[in-house]
Amino acid sequence: MRHLLSISDLGVEGIEEVCRLADHFTEVSQRSIPKVPALRGKTVATLFYEDSTRTRLSFEVAARRLSADVMGFSVSNSSVNKGESVRDTVNTISAMGPDALVVRHRSAGVPHQVAAWTGAAVINAGDGWHEHPTQALLDCYTIRDRLGSLAGRRIVILGDVKHSRVARSCVRAFTALGAKVTLVAPPTLLPPAVDSWPVDIGFSLDAVLTDCDVVYGLRVQNERQSEALLPSLREYTAQWGLTVDRAARMKPDALVMHPGPVNRGVEIAPEVLDRPNATLNEQVRHGVVVRMAVLYLLLVADPNSP
Amino acid sequence: MRHLLSISDLGVEGIEEVCRLADHFTEVSQRSIPKVPALRGKTVATLFYEDSTRTRLSFEVAARRLSADVMGFSVSNSSVNKGESVRDTVNTISAMGPDALVVRHRSAGVPHQVAAWTGAAVINAGDGWHEHPTQALLDCYTIRDRLGSLAGRRIVILGDVKHSRVARSCVRAFTALGAKVTLVAPPTLLPPAVDSWPVDIGFSLDAVLTDCDVVYGLRVQNERQSEALLPSLREYTAQWGLTVDRAARMKPDALVMHPGPVNRGVEIAPEVLDRPNATLNEQVRHGVVVRMAVLYLLLVADPNSP
Amino acid sequence: MRHLLSISDLGVEGIEEVCRLADHFTEVSQRSIPKVPALRGKTVATLFYEDSTRTRLSFEVAARRLSADVMGFSVSNSSVNKGESVRDTVNTISAMGPDALVVRHRSAGVPHQVAAWTGAAVINAGDGWHEHPTQALLDCYTIRDRLGSLAGRRIVILGDVKHSRVARSCVRAFTALGAKVTLVAPPTLLPPAVDSWPVDIGFSLDAVLTDCDVVYGLRVQNERQSEALLPSLREYTAQWGLTVDRAARMKPDALVMHPGPVNRGVEIAPEVLDRPNATLNEQVRHGVVVRMAVLYLLLVADPNSP
Repeated sequence: MRHLLSISDLGVEGIEEVCRLADHFTEVSQRSIPKVPALRGKTVATLFYEDSTRTRLSFEVAARRLSADVMGFSVSNSSVNKGESVRDTVNTISAMGPDALVVRHRSAGVPHQVAAWTGAAVINAGDGWHEHPTQALLDCYTIRDRLGSLAGRRIVILGDVKHSRVARSCVRAFTALGAKVTLVAPPTLLPPAVDSWPVDIGFSLDAVLTDCDVVYGLRVQNERQSEALLPSLREYTAQWGLTVDRAARMKPDALVMHPGPVNRGVEIAPEVLDRPNATLNEQVRHGVVVRMAVLYLLLVADPNSP
Repeated sequence: MRHLLSISDLGVEGIEEVCRLADHFTEVSQRSIPKVPALRGKTVATLFYEDSTRTRLSFEVAARRLSADVMGFSVSNSSVNKGESVRDTVNTISAMGPDALVVRHRSAGVPHQVAAWTGAAVINAGDGWHEHPTQALLDCYTIRDRLGSLAGRRIVILGDVKHSRVARSCVRAFTALGAKVTLVAPPTLLPPAVDSWPVDIGFSLDAVLTDCDVVYGLRVQNERQSEALLPSLREYTAQWGLTVDRAARMKPDALVMHPGPVNRGVEIAPEVLDRPNATLNEQVRHGVVVRMAVLYLLLVADPNSP
Repeated sequence: MRHLLSISDLGVEGIEEVCRLADHFTEVSQRSIPKVPALRGKTVATLFYEDSTRTRLSFEVAARRLSADVMGFSVSNSSVNKGESVRDTVNTISAMGPDALVVRHRSAGVPHQVAAWTGAAVINAGDGWHEHPTQALLDCYTIRDRLGSLAGRRIVILGDVKHSRVARSCVRAFTALGAKVTLVAPPTLLPPAVDSWPVDIGFSLDAVLTDCDVVYGLRVQNERQSEALLPSLREYTAQWGLTVDRAARMKPDALVMHPGPVNRGVEIAPEVLDRPNATLNEQVRHGVVVRMAVLYLLLVADPNSP
């Protein structure tokens, strides 16, 4: 594996390898000096065309704990504003010799193109509505950490599936590991081709709540127009929000997950976020060790293995 | 001491301990390789809701000289713009595992709240009109370096006391170390509760000039509206500015201090800033070693001591 | 040499010394851990008053490969916006103890002034229409790498010479090393004093194309108003653009160079940029090793030599 563009690049074995490595890096993170020299002298460049401090920082922290140098290409201050094409920007950054390029872009497919233009390993950190594989990996790792395994687990993915790259990556990863996924969403926020996805569709949260092991809430995104397809945030919460009443009907050890940043009181009630089975902070913590695992896999493991 | 939120957290002994450590780090800074491994593997995160390159850089340089990693959370590019609350942002950053969190916010009290939400050591880098303790510490260190001690010294704090967190922290620190502080300000720029402060109040700079050991000028702040409470900058300078004439009437070894950035020719005349008893650049230099001392105290010294 | 403000600071021997050091650092860059400890414990500060991610990143990567710390002063978020003068900003940064200060400013001469105000070594990273010496050095290094030497080579510098600091530095460096330089430009984009430059002037690209060893295209700069002096971009390309037809008439091993970012299809046709004798990516790659050489020369080599 040279790049991580989609969850499909990994397959079941790849996901499990990432989780095993993440276990190791979790142990490293608890040491008094939580660093290893694995990537000493290597450079990880971030190229974010959409702002995302949390994802970018997570990759930066992961890179530094592996002793790599970090090179942050800030698009908003750059020659991109002079009209430079993505290709020329990638050529320029590549010429400075980074070993990995972490790319986020508002258009699906850009990381694939970047991979064709650079000698560096490319990691997709979110492309349009397409994929966000490291998010799905940290979510798998969190479920596995809490529930032992995903096999046979019932996972509800709730909300704006249509505009969510997280949902696409999670469906691929969760089902690959044997979970049964049900999408629950307002009909206007389901993607057109959802019939071909390996999932069940539900239109009522209440119908699936009592039986599931995980409710995975998606963000209502002003910035990608989910709101325009909703009557109002208040009605969204009434029908699709994880309220205190609904959370009380879940199984006691069922998990409440969300990729963040959450709109408190819209997708999930504040009281529900404070319960011990809400995993939002764990997901962020696991993000660092999972990204360490991905960087290690791409930059240290044998490049000739598939 | 787990956090540095206010000068009161330190007390006299704490301030003196910081100064002793800063002496040591001054010696380190003069070595050919001015670094120590004290914080190797630790991460210092900065979370600035108000821009301040000089304070942020000073903390970053201090952290790196102690061999810590730095994680800069830039609010202007972040999910804060998607409406994320301070609490959720702090939870997210904390989950990535920083050892210290340096916080600046336009509202008083935010660093106290942050300290309740995170496992990291919190350093207040300025909160509203409340406090800016590391500024006061570097000012104490500068006075002690020049004049030997603050005990019995007469210090005039001059200008917009009302909107100044620097003034509040300096009054606490200077008086704790035995200095006599006189506030000199236009009546509109004195805080309402100033009667309870352990200071004298003067309305004439000329009346106190000849006798004092330090004139500490505060910034006239457009951005926090001190100007609206002034007739004009020219009249401010005429009555409250440290002009060449006034500076000439000060004792020869009396210090001219300012937290910066200074409005040359408004608070202090350019010629006065170039005199050897103006300490502005020393204050910045001391800022680095004092912040090294604070980071060392919070992250290395025995965490079980009060 | 304490500073690098102009190509004239180096002279022929200095340029050759930079190229020799860059050869060494090219070898370092090919190692599995492409770093040397030469600047361990030193700090390189960047102070860019004009945005330029590519140049800033190149200096940062160069500094880190020499094991220096990097301190990035971002002007757009800083107290510069509170009206702080360049001098006060430089005083503040200098007080934090950087060993080198890399400065870019829209006004010619600012790096010279900065050098008078700071104890750090100053590197001019571009000042107005004046100079950009490290760009010229990496261009010399690229030509030397491809063609063996600049002596006797015919180099055409093409386009907006008037507003180009790159052209000024390149003319100095190329002619110092024995190349024959011809400027080819629309008459409105030639500088007023060009008669005193050690160059030939041509108004027809076609007349010089077949005979030259290098065509060095300059950027048409919206941001510095070259367009206002042109009838239209289309007419520019028709008369002064390096089209496919024109490139076909060049000698087979003649180089196509550009400082980037290029306006594809305006200064140079996309197909010409993809030919093996177009050196744009090499120029970027060489930028890193040349800047390593400059930092090494200024911060490690004997400071008492002239």
